[in-house]
Amino acid sequence: MNYFQTNFNDLKDELETQLKTCKKFSEGLFLDISRGKPSQAQLDLSSALLDVGHKNLENNIPDVRNYGNLEGIPEAQKLMAILIGCQQEDVIIGGNSSLSLMFDVISCFFIHGIDGNPWCNQKIKFLCPSPGYDRHFSICEYFGIEMIPIKVNDDGPDIERIKNLVKNDQNIKGIWCVPKYSNPSGIIYSDHVVKELANLSPAASDFRIFWDNAYSVHDLMEPSDLFDIFYEISKNQKNELVIAFSSMSKVTFAGSGISALACRGKNLELLKKYYSFKTIGFDKINQLRHVKFFGKDKNFKQNLKLHMRKHAEILRPKFNLVHEVLEFNFKNNPIISWSKPGGGYFICVNTFGSAKRVVDLCAENGLKLTPAGVMFPYGIDLEDSTIRIAPSYSSLEELKKALEIFCACVKISALEKLLKMRR
Amino acid sequence: MNYFQTNFNDLKDELETQLKTCKKFSEGLFLDISRGKPSQAQLDLSSALLDVGHKNLENNIPDVRNYGNLEGIPEAQKLMAILIGCQQEDVIIGGNSSLSLMFDVISCFFIHGIDGNPWCNQKIKFLCPSPGYDRHFSICEYFGIEMIPIKVNDDGPDIERIKNLVKNDQNIKGIWCVPKYSNPSGIIYSDHVVKELANLSPAASDFRIFWDNAYSVHDLMEPSDLFDIFYEISKNQKNELVIAFSSMSKVTFAGSGISALACRGKNLELLKKYYSFKTIGFDKINQLRHVKFFGKDKNFKQNLKLHMRKHAEILRPKFNLVHEVLEFNFKNNPIISWSKPGGGYFICVNTFGSAKRVVDLCAENGLKLTPAGVMFPYGIDLEDSTIRIAPSYSSLEELKKALEIFCACVKISALEKLLKMRR
Repeated sequence: MNYFQTNFNDLKDELETQLKTCKKFSEGLFLDISRGKPSQAQLDLSSALLDVGHKNLENNIPDVRNYGNLEGIPEAQKLMAILIGCQQEDVIIGGNSSLSLMFDVISCFFIHGIDGNPWCNQKIKFLCPSPGYDRHFSICEYFGIEMIPIKVNDDGPDIERIKNLVKNDQNIKGIWCVPKYSNPSGIIYSDHVVKELANLSPAASDFRIFWDNAYSVHDLMEPSDLFDIFYEISKNQKNELVIAFSSMSKVTFAGSGISALACRGKNLELLKKYYSFKTIGFDKINQLRHVKFFGKDKNFKQNLKLHMRKHAEILRPKFNLVHEVLEFNFKNNPIISWSKPGGGYFICVNTFGSAKRVVDLCAENGLKLTPAGVMFPYGIDLEDSTIRIAPSYSSLEELKKALEIFCACVKISALEKLLKMRR
Repeated sequence: MNYFQTNFNDLKDELETQLKTCKKFSEGLFLDISRGKPSQAQLDLSSALLDVGHKNLENNIPDVRNYGNLEGIPEAQKLMAILIGCQQEDVIIGGNSSLSLMFDVISCFFIHGIDGNPWCNQKIKFLCPSPGYDRHFSICEYFGIEMIPIKVNDDGPDIERIKNLVKNDQNIKGIWCVPKYSNPSGIIYSDHVVKELANLSPAASDFRIFWDNAYSVHDLMEPSDLFDIFYEISKNQKNELVIAFSSMSKVTFAGSGISALACRGKNLELLKKYYSFKTIGFDKINQLRHVKFFGKDKNFKQNLKLHMRKHAEILRPKFNLVHEVLEFNFKNNPIISWSKPGGGYFICVNTFGSAKRVVDLCAENGLKLTPAGVMFPYGIDLEDSTIRIAPSYSSLEELKKALEIFCACVKISALEKLLKMRR
């Protein structure tokens, strides 16, 4: 049924039907598709990592169990360089959270600045391609950084607007980018956009691109390539423009992976200094566990690929189910549109102005979604449009139930709106 | 030979002798007794922790491998509460480094303050009992915090001076304390000093005691008790005065332990908020590994005690060797004095004004000591007196060689001084 071509009375009947559907499916339900959490089956893929015991870790000189080695062990740097897409010598290995590394980088610049002028003494602004990752925006909030939303197109954030803004405002010091399988839109930045970013000429000499390459190997189908931004900044002699991040959180264990950042020149110097005051070194045993888990270093790439293929095999049916159910429900009733990403963790739904109502309706019916708005700076989705579906954690059966509720709630919200308009 | 009772020519001969001794022992030597690093034998005590594999970690609900649980798993909170000496509900578990937690706490107050007035907008001063832990002072330097040295007596820092200073200067916002087996002096704060600290009435409402209880269970002989500061602040209704820290770094693995902080009220609220912006949670698998390693929670205390006794058995002969060698060399030649701590990681040597020369001489002869001065704010030991010996890492044989060099260098520096005075 295409609601736009349906008369008032039939829409009223349809609303009754959907309310009943909702009631039927929501009985005693509590499901959560709000966060990109790996499922137990995905975590099980890395069980062997837990069994890299003391026999495997013995005879490491220098002893990984002891203090020291701020940048991380070389093999782990090599492994994470593959994930980030950079050179080994650019890498600092962190703890279990790349988010913490991003927070640390901002802290470092907040306290000491990059060019000797601490950010805590300045009005700082960041460009925020949105919809984007809510935790990036939260970091800005915590540091009192003003956020400027940037529209995300199919090929990446609106690059012309970015060029214009950074050229003219020296308070703009950064941009958050999730360049591959963007959270939540699922897009991959085009070569053109990456090249343009790597060639920015910002008014602020301490402007940095925060390149959160969280989903670099998280392909659902055949691996897709992201243009190499480190190559491009080298070519442009703008080596200090980029600070990149990645982590093993969605490769091995969400809570116990290893993370890394990569950058060059003054950035690397400042951040090594920062960490030399903050710690004697991150957990090297866990670094070595990851290294052993991915085999000999010449096989890292291949083994990583094989491992991620196993993730894809678990995730793909869930993404497919979402597409099938949405297709079935909305193919001939275009009240929403949605993304079909080739990887990452999210499907992004465009509700044409009903996001908040849909999220609330789902909540009332036992289905937790990411709160509407949080994917935008200050929680404000001007079009009240974007909803993020995270299908990874639920079983297929749970996900199917969740989608029934979701579809019914989408329909109810649209019917409410249409009936009101036609009254 | 007592140098003070020896004539000029005999002192000259003695100098020749000591120079020869130095030369004999330093041939091809490179030894390092500069840092409190556990030895391999100590690290081996926790090998079983590495073998807490996936079989032991399965069936934990909620799944420790996944995201979440900002404060840490309850059993780990219980375990670390024992180490810190506080209630389980006061505890946030961190990553592998308590130093990072201290840095984070200062960061949090630097960015947001405690009473709404960020420390980055204020002139901040800290009291620094010294000699003290160099990395505490480094944190102050990094944040531009002015350091005020406080003399350390046998019962703790000069409490009358502290009371006076904090009462009259509202820019004084903190004090660093290592209350048990202080680094490097080895003293334990007396009950009186702890009680006075827990009853401070600072001019600054946002003054905090940074209670780094790093060596709480690190006894070489029978366990010594430290007066319970959390009990005392409760009694005095000054619950927010203390933020305490400890870690497993010198219990299990120096580089891969778990750390914790403990505090109450507004402190805990602010720090939980800080971490909620910075991370989704620390490494819970490693928390659970530690929990499993120390057995059932009702046995934590006892098992921890037994485990620390094994450390003591490895460490005690090293400390004894230092005492024996120093005793043998300086019993009748009082050109230095030294501490005999009941635990911790350091022996503190008072060289009566020759610290820098002794450290330099040792370096020239292949023995690395902690740089003279670093145990004082701004690296300034006004009396140029304190040297820290860290005997834990070396084997007994290496330590013996190191001590031969050390004693010869101490003698040479004293002889140089005496000969110069008598010329």
